[in-house]
Amino acid sequence: MKAVRFNGVGKPVSIDEVARPKPGPGQVLIRIGGAGVCHSDLHVMEEELGFQTGFTLGHENAGWIAELGQGVSGFKEGDAVAVYGPWGCGHCHACQLSMENYCENAASIGVSGGGLGADGGMAEFMLVPAARLLVPLGTLEPRLAAPLSDAALTPYHAIKRALPLLTGDTTVVVLGVGGLGHMAVQLLRVLSTARIIADDVDEAKLRQAKQLGADHTVNTRDVEAATVAIRDIVGPRGAVLVLDCVGIQPTFDLGGRVLGRDSRWTIVGLGGGHHDFHFGSTPYGCEMCTPYWGGRAELMEVIAMARDGRIHAHTTEFPLEQAADVYAQLKAGKIAGRAVLIP
Amino acid sequence: MKAVRFNGVGKPVSIDEVARPKPGPGQVLIRIGGAGVCHSDLHVMEEELGFQTGFTLGHENAGWIAELGQGVSGFKEGDAVAVYGPWGCGHCHACQLSMENYCENAASIGVSGGGLGADGGMAEFMLVPAARLLVPLGTLEPRLAAPLSDAALTPYHAIKRALPLLTGDTTVVVLGVGGLGHMAVQLLRVLSTARIIADDVDEAKLRQAKQLGADHTVNTRDVEAATVAIRDIVGPRGAVLVLDCVGIQPTFDLGGRVLGRDSRWTIVGLGGGHHDFHFGSTPYGCEMCTPYWGGRAELMEVIAMARDGRIHAHTTEFPLEQAADVYAQLKAGKIAGRAVLIP
Amino acid sequence: MKAVRFNGVGKPVSIDEVARPKPGPGQVLIRIGGAGVCHSDLHVMEEELGFQTGFTLGHENAGWIAELGQGVSGFKEGDAVAVYGPWGCGHCHACQLSMENYCENAASIGVSGGGLGADGGMAEFMLVPAARLLVPLGTLEPRLAAPLSDAALTPYHAIKRALPLLTGDTTVVVLGVGGLGHMAVQLLRVLSTARIIADDVDEAKLRQAKQLGADHTVNTRDVEAATVAIRDIVGPRGAVLVLDCVGIQPTFDLGGRVLGRDSRWTIVGLGGGHHDFHFGSTPYGCEMCTPYWGGRAELMEVIAMARDGRIHAHTTEFPLEQAADVYAQLKAGKIAGRAVLIP
Amino acid sequence: MKAVRFNGVGKPVSIDEVARPKPGPGQVLIRIGGAGVCHSDLHVMEEELGFQTGFTLGHENAGWIAELGQGVSGFKEGDAVAVYGPWGCGHCHACQLSMENYCENAASIGVSGGGLGADGGMAEFMLVPAARLLVPLGTLEPRLAAPLSDAALTPYHAIKRALPLLTGDTTVVVLGVGGLGHMAVQLLRVLSTARIIADDVDEAKLRQAKQLGADHTVNTRDVEAATVAIRDIVGPRGAVLVLDCVGIQPTFDLGGRVLGRDSRWTIVGLGGGHHDFHFGSTPYGCEMCTPYWGGRAELMEVIAMARDGRIHAHTTEFPLEQAADVYAQLKAGKIAGRAVLIP
Repeated sequence: MKAVRFNGVGKPVSIDEVARPKPGPGQVLIRIGGAGVCHSDLHVMEEELGFQTGFTLGHENAGWIAELGQGVSGFKEGDAVAVYGPWGCGHCHACQLSMENYCENAASIGVSGGGLGADGGMAEFMLVPAARLLVPLGTLEPRLAAPLSDAALTPYHAIKRALPLLTGDTTVVVLGVGGLGHMAVQLLRVLSTARIIADDVDEAKLRQAKQLGADHTVNTRDVEAATVAIRDIVGPRGAVLVLDCVGIQPTFDLGGRVLGRDSRWTIVGLGGGHHDFHFGSTPYGCEMCTPYWGGRAELMEVIAMARDGRIHAHTTEFPLEQAADVYAQLKAGKIAGRAVLIP
Repeated sequence: MKAVRFNGVGKPVSIDEVARPKPGPGQVLIRIGGAGVCHSDLHVMEEELGFQTGFTLGHENAGWIAELGQGVSGFKEGDAVAVYGPWGCGHCHACQLSMENYCENAASIGVSGGGLGADGGMAEFMLVPAARLLVPLGTLEPRLAAPLSDAALTPYHAIKRALPLLTGDTTVVVLGVGGLGHMAVQLLRVLSTARIIADDVDEAKLRQAKQLGADHTVNTRDVEAATVAIRDIVGPRGAVLVLDCVGIQPTFDLGGRVLGRDSRWTIVGLGGGHHDFHFGSTPYGCEMCTPYWGGRAELMEVIAMARDGRIHAHTTEFPLEQAADVYAQLKAGKIAGRAVLIP
Repeated sequence: MKAVRFNGVGKPVSIDEVARPKPGPGQVLIRIGGAGVCHSDLHVMEEELGFQTGFTLGHENAGWIAELGQGVSGFKEGDAVAVYGPWGCGHCHACQLSMENYCENAASIGVSGGGLGADGGMAEFMLVPAARLLVPLGTLEPRLAAPLSDAALTPYHAIKRALPLLTGDTTVVVLGVGGLGHMAVQLLRVLSTARIIADDVDEAKLRQAKQLGADHTVNTRDVEAATVAIRDIVGPRGAVLVLDCVGIQPTFDLGGRVLGRDSRWTIVGLGGGHHDFHFGSTPYGCEMCTPYWGGRAELMEVIAMARDGRIHAHTTEFPLEQAADVYAQLKAGKIAGRAVLIP
Repeated sequence: MKAVRFNGVGKPVSIDEVARPKPGPGQVLIRIGGAGVCHSDLHVMEEELGFQTGFTLGHENAGWIAELGQGVSGFKEGDAVAVYGPWGCGHCHACQLSMENYCENAASIGVSGGGLGADGGMAEFMLVPAARLLVPLGTLEPRLAAPLSDAALTPYHAIKRALPLLTGDTTVVVLGVGGLGHMAVQLLRVLSTARIIADDVDEAKLRQAKQLGADHTVNTRDVEAATVAIRDIVGPRGAVLVLDCVGIQPTFDLGGRVLGRDSRWTIVGLGGGHHDFHFGSTPYGCEMCTPYWGGRAELMEVIAMARDGRIHAHTTEFPLEQAADVYAQLKAGKIAGRAVLIP
């Protein structure tokens, strides 16, 4: 079968012919319906993150069950499923609670999941090591579900932890309305009555944010002016949540200036920004954090929200063979919404 | 000034001329902009609840500050405010946390609040014993805010305690789409992605529920058929929340049959229903409760949601002088939405 | 191998020779180190609960891994483990979160777990259907761990849900200081600073409760006098938690009279008591519930607390062959602490 | 009356004769029983924090009610009370919830509380601007209660926010066993079953920590060796909470190296340390925060825990007149436990 392969840092991906895997006891083979193309793959290709060379890319995957390994129950061939991405040990306290994203044995496992060390879903078939990693889709199409497994799950997990703060009369600032940010705005809208200020440097994305439920939009091309505009909206209480989906230095700088006391500063964008943290550098009671992906049960909730029409990912579909070109477009900022590869 | 007076159980209310109160130290005088007419007043008038005779009715109140007693800061004359209804001791643990609805000294205080033992807001002016009981309205009109202080605060408090359960793929059953229920549907819609099943015996109210955000509606005139219909929607997981805004025997019976495990059965309607509680009478992990009204900080949140246009009470306005007639219409089920008396 | 068999309602248990099971893919065979003898087995033997006839009893089990089925990783032969008792479908939202005690497919599964429909641990070996149901013991001996899997897990789960209420200056009432109650007192002591009032009809158990951390003890032989005594201690705030480990009518009646507002009334004892629930029958904001057992991750926490010496089950050990006699003694109230059968 | 006065940054404190204040409407006059001497006063005296010159120091205060202003109810002369320290506006959402430490109008108020801009408790009498700021002591002596209002409330608030993380099998690292740290160890012990590792450079303090409930102690004089020792105890899961009661660079550096995923890094010490925060600088899901003091209801809980004997502050008492000398000893690290001034 065809697969999009990672060949080492700095090397181009290739479309290779690889053997179709066979599920062992407890494993499940998935026929891929769609595989999302995520910004973090560019980091895998360009930075030394410790991954071994030679695996199939694609960590946002959904499809249909093609074959069940021995001892797997509760699923049958043909079932539409999403694949949960961050694979943990399955046994530790975090994994028992479905939060494999915080598996305490991650350091000793060596792979982060399919497409991140192990073979992922940019191929015709994908081997999933355990049935607990599958979420039934019901009537939701795999090509629509695939990007939700990261682009929606990541902001959902980040937002869910902040929900008790997001009562009426509070304000949330979303920085960046791209793959994660356009899902974040939708999720905040349906999960809370907080006022949403969406920020981006691209006016088209700001218009999209308004349509998706933002109450206010601010163009952050001029960070000083944006700071004043946001402060004006949030007033003395400040923002209770800054959700930074970009993570570059200007968004770090902006976020730190608009937060109120007893708040949350959540960074999910990998833009390389820094903050000199010390007593007084953040408002009293502000929690600064970098959550990672989300839990298995949270993915079930995300899939249900999409199936019920509360949220949806804006996607553009490409054939699997165009993977290299799609990554190039992604890097150049030319992809509208989430790109999804269809085998 | 004119005031609507409670003259004892079984006696008609009267519109009497009473002295305009004068605020002492720490107290605040409010010029009433609107006073909501609530079903529970009928209980006050018809049942022996222990209230002394001779006070002004009206426990859903909003208006403008007319005069500040000595020592009150943070407010000024003319400010539009809602009056928080359940007045506690102000000192106990619950009151310190703004939950005067659960004041631990309630039994020894003797009054439940303005309009419930003390003079309420069905008058031109109302005396509020402490500034902590006032919530600034900003741009929201008092006549719109008044009914929110109970008809929205009560379901909001009930729903807020259940929110962690209301994730995607769960279902909530709202029984009764009247004064509380029509607010409950709106609140559930903007605060969660749970599927909402709204139930009533009145088709017009079911249509209203759909417009306010219910996903499904079921007519409960035939309780057996309604049970089957609801079970069909909720599936094996069952409802995670039944919010009973009626509380009569048929709604008790229905609620108990559609709940799932690890759920919540919340009764806010005063209809006199019973449930024979014993091990196995409710699903494992189900919490059965009768919350009461809400907290001061929760009222701030309700007011903000209304000011931001997320929720609104459907009201019909009447002059204060028609109070007796309005109560009669309310008892006969002829009031559409919430009746509000305007002095 | 020898096994203690359930032969149908009303029939005596027997010690039979049965075949040693063989683990299939994903399954694990456990050599039993100890199996706790629980009151609820008496209900299984004496009431028609819907179980099929012919299975090995014992739902509080621990031992050592004897054999791993294909595809099981993360464990090795000889590892000491506790067996998590309530076996769910493993796939639903509750099971993904480790709360198989609230599995939404429980009704269609037909068995509640090993010893409750499926073969349990009163035998030399026990087959566990999935590795997710095992909790590593480390240095804790299986014979000490076995009873914790129910007698400690059940009150722990019940208490954990109430913990946010159990702040300083609050009072908890524990009704019954038997198998569950003597663990409940210990757990409350190490998990909270609430004042603990332990109640029983047996003075020896009250003395034990004092040693385990209770602040006050009240003999409930005279329910009226006990009510007065408890009310005197709790004052106007009332108890924030009544944890009824007995569940007979007198403890139901007592619990309902000492609770405060915004509280929790938790029934874990199967004594057959009733409460006529209606608006006003419980204090405002009180949550009445019958939680069931606990979650897989909660069992990990219980095992860790025991291993660290924070809690310990008082046990009396018997050879497996004496099972029938032990059940007879249990029914007669002659077992001190928890009986554990050792194969 | 005599009072310890702040005379400006860099200037010595003086014991001056000032007028005894008179309570206005809503205010309360307290006869001081004890005033704690806190490290943060040294910051007030030595750094430009924006306070106006000329106020009485002392922000950890307790005593007896000497006189009630008009309109104050619920208290009477002679009642023993603690004074809640961080005075907010009293009206905002945070203040309504008793969290005046996070008052959203703090910036415009100009004073942080009595002893921090307004006249504090190092005097014979102290004026408290509102009764909501008083917590009844019951049988607890004011001289013992005074230091709890900061030295216990601050770590209690910090720990309370982390409690859901502190389940069995987790580890907490407390850095520094001084005024705050020796309370933190006690609080962690009675509120959780987490393993406590207490760290200090002083062996006597480590011995004290063991007596107060720490499971392990590590001397941090050699930070590298301490890191290895702590990592050895916490294992791959890492610490779920690092509570840094010192906040100097070495404790910042140490804390960052022993945390696990999904954890909390809480800084309450004002030692001037820094952390270069960026994606990857803290474990995934770790929340880094600087909480401030605590809430009014939390102070009620602290007082109750002390009255019930669960916690107690180690204090050394001095006459009010020795204030200057006590500050000098505090700066030199010569005060054992908390110094309390007695008028």
